[in-house]
Amino acid sequence: MKMHNRDLKNLQKIASDMNSMEKITMVMPVIKKMPIIDVSEVLSLVENDELVVIFNEFTHEEQGEIFAEFPLVKQLSFFQRVSKKLFSKIFEEMPSDARADLFQLMTQQEQVDLLPYLSKPVRENVLSLSSYPADTAGGIMITDFATVSKDMTCFEAIQQVRKDSPSKKTIYYVYVVNSDKTLVGFITLKDLIIAEPDVLVEDELHTEFVFGYLEDTSESVAKKIDKYQLVALPILNDKNQLVGIVTHDEALDVIQAEHTEDMERFMGILSNNEELDYNETSIFGHFKKRVFWLVTLAIVGIISGLIIHSYEGALAQMMILALYMPMVADTGGNAGSQSATVVIRALALGQITMKSWIKVLWKETRIALMLSICLGVLAFAKVVFLSWETDIPAAYSLVSIGGVIALALSLQVISSTIIGAILPILVRRFGGDPAVAASPAITTIVDISGLLIYFSLAASFFNLS
Amino acid sequence: MKMHNRDLKNLQKIASDMNSMEKITMVMPVIKKMPIIDVSEVLSLVENDELVVIFNEFTHEEQGEIFAEFPLVKQLSFFQRVSKKLFSKIFEEMPSDARADLFQLMTQQEQVDLLPYLSKPVRENVLSLSSYPADTAGGIMITDFATVSKDMTCFEAIQQVRKDSPSKKTIYYVYVVNSDKTLVGFITLKDLIIAEPDVLVEDELHTEFVFGYLEDTSESVAKKIDKYQLVALPILNDKNQLVGIVTHDEALDVIQAEHTEDMERFMGILSNNEELDYNETSIFGHFKKRVFWLVTLAIVGIISGLIIHSYEGALAQMMILALYMPMVADTGGNAGSQSATVVIRALALGQITMKSWIKVLWKETRIALMLSICLGVLAFAKVVFLSWETDIPAAYSLVSIGGVIALALSLQVISSTIIGAILPILVRRFGGDPAVAASPAITTIVDISGLLIYFSLAASFFNLS
Repeated sequence: MKMHNRDLKNLQKIASDMNSMEKITMVMPVIKKMPIIDVSEVLSLVENDELVVIFNEFTHEEQGEIFAEFPLVKQLSFFQRVSKKLFSKIFEEMPSDARADLFQLMTQQEQVDLLPYLSKPVRENVLSLSSYPADTAGGIMITDFATVSKDMTCFEAIQQVRKDSPSKKTIYYVYVVNSDKTLVGFITLKDLIIAEPDVLVEDELHTEFVFGYLEDTSESVAKKIDKYQLVALPILNDKNQLVGIVTHDEALDVIQAEHTEDMERFMGILSNNEELDYNETSIFGHFKKRVFWLVTLAIVGIISGLIIHSYEGALAQMMILALYMPMVADTGGNAGSQSATVVIRALALGQITMKSWIKVLWKETRIALMLSICLGVLAFAKVVFLSWETDIPAAYSLVSIGGVIALALSLQVISSTIIGAILPILVRRFGGDPAVAASPAITTIVDISGLLIYFSLAASFFNLS
Repeated sequence: MKMHNRDLKNLQKIASDMNSMEKITMVMPVIKKMPIIDVSEVLSLVENDELVVIFNEFTHEEQGEIFAEFPLVKQLSFFQRVSKKLFSKIFEEMPSDARADLFQLMTQQEQVDLLPYLSKPVRENVLSLSSYPADTAGGIMITDFATVSKDMTCFEAIQQVRKDSPSKKTIYYVYVVNSDKTLVGFITLKDLIIAEPDVLVEDELHTEFVFGYLEDTSESVAKKIDKYQLVALPILNDKNQLVGIVTHDEALDVIQAEHTEDMERFMGILSNNEELDYNETSIFGHFKKRVFWLVTLAIVGIISGLIIHSYEGALAQMMILALYMPMVADTGGNAGSQSATVVIRALALGQITMKSWIKVLWKETRIALMLSICLGVLAFAKVVFLSWETDIPAAYSLVSIGGVIALALSLQVISSTIIGAILPILVRRFGGDPAVAASPAITTIVDISGLLIYFSLAASFFNLS
């Protein structure tokens, strides 16, 4: 057996490297007292060969829990390092969702090699769970949940949960199902304990419950768990049979990942569900995520280039206009990004809806007016302060030029703020993610409006051509 | 009694307005079947006068739960509308954290008026909870939790929980305390149920537990709940006595609010814990949150203005340079914002630490190199394509000018990417929130580096002065 030979060699290597093992042995008593998550954090840094030995200090159940918390990359490398037989022991004890995630990452050959070592229920469970896409309820649910039937007494129900539950992660909600596994309601462990023992489950049953379907997006089930403050949400298949539950901690992970995605989209970074960790993403992975929008925006920037180009004559007549072009563009970009941020976030949290766009527009317009006054005054002061010795055409005073530039900047702040607020709503209206209409995109778009305002205003005030 | 008269009038007004009441009466059977959160959502839109009547359809306990989910503004307006006596009934049934939040929003006079109507335990609880700042563990904890002592048997412990628990929100963890209320450990409801009835709590006790202190930030306790996947986290005072618990749904709210704050800081919007809802924030509130950074950045922009000003001579000799100034600035700003976003997010999620800054620097440098090549080529093409008929000094070809502009842009992409990655780490190093070093700040800072690179490169290549 090739695998076994390799394991033996590994063990020999470990034995020869007593130094680091000794260190670990020394800290083992401390490690064993830590919460599983911390143990996992420490052990994820240990070489695979040493891990094999250290894992012997833990029960199989603990091994499964510790292993499940490792980064996926570490899980995969450990799996590839040890014998399938040894690995299957750990794999069987992993929570069902973590198990399916890892299984999905394996090559087909690796999957085929591992399956014979698994017990029938685990094998079936892994195969069925890993068939759901990672971003659906099916992809993030776990399959250990407690069920009872409604004609039991509360005492019987408790006995049933006691019997079944040692392996169950979450038994705070006990689900009540018919003989065909369709979900009829739930009862909390608290209800069961408080109820008189001989009361029927039926009488304590909550029949109005929140649930999700297998193919729902992971985001939508996470939002339900958040909204209804649930510890777990039951997941049904299309026959309304209970097939799994999504737990509150999984929901939190989904919401965190969603937030990273939002932030990234926000800054023109292509999101990729599988590459959310900075360190695990390769240089080329980072490059790919960033280059698309940078190049797209640079191409859209050609429009700005064409506008500037068409006003070359005006710039040549009044060089001072070139000096304040960046100021107008930057301020507009900042103001637009701010209003976009606020609106995108309010959309994400459900604070504003599509229908209230007119209210948002009116609110943003008033905010923009206040901002434009402040920033306009500042811009005027800047021009007069910075350009007192700049060459300007004799026909015009610095004050009048400063006034026009300040007016252009004020109008630009207003138009950018409004564009920044409305664009995300429009994108959502047409089915897109509002976060796409974020900072770099807004900056590039308001650059165009800004240049048009700036030059057309200057050209008409100063008769430039 | 003035208050009573007003209530009577309210009731009369409702009676006279039968139309809307009839509508509500019609939908009541449906509403009563919905989850509390949904009921609350519907009823938060109903006028206070009608609410008084509708609340009669619910038990006091339900009233408290429904009311607690109203927006704070709605809670306050209802409180100010009804008699203190009627209100105290609802107030007493609210979860302790929601109760304290509302109490903190009342004027001192309102607080003094309400207190006599409250039962002694609730009065003491409200006064003590509302003394903690909203952004600490004390400010978000609830005080209903189940405790037992370690010398009970599991059967006795279950009996104790049964007796105490009807009013407890969360009894999934049962906390084990000494007679002086110091926390010695916890036992889950699941443990209690699975254990043989005559086993001592002591033998099933988890003595290694995660906890928080009253004065910990709400963010840090939320992160613990996230990391250790807890349903609730016990909160201790400085004598290690158990004084409250923070629940998983509260943690989720804190993390969501934290995200909003991050996003806002990110875009140069001053965050304000109490004004996170778009609609509840006034126009002036929005203005205040946005104007600070816009003005600050406009002032910092004076440096860019001074740089451009000092190269006025060069610009006059080679007008084409003015046309591509915005392109270099924008692209640098976008690239810098991207790397800042990625690094800030990775810092927030604990994926990178202060110590790994050199690794981040090296990774970002390599990513920047790839980006700079793509964008440099694009910039060169843009100059040649857009400016084929622009006036340029006879001594130089368009190709050489395009080459220098492209080189400047490439260098700018590299320097902005690096600045964007390092600045958040620096800000964190000096105790600030890395999100402050985000988009608008980065854009403004890399504008300065970009102009310096652009003009010094052009000046040295083309002998401008």
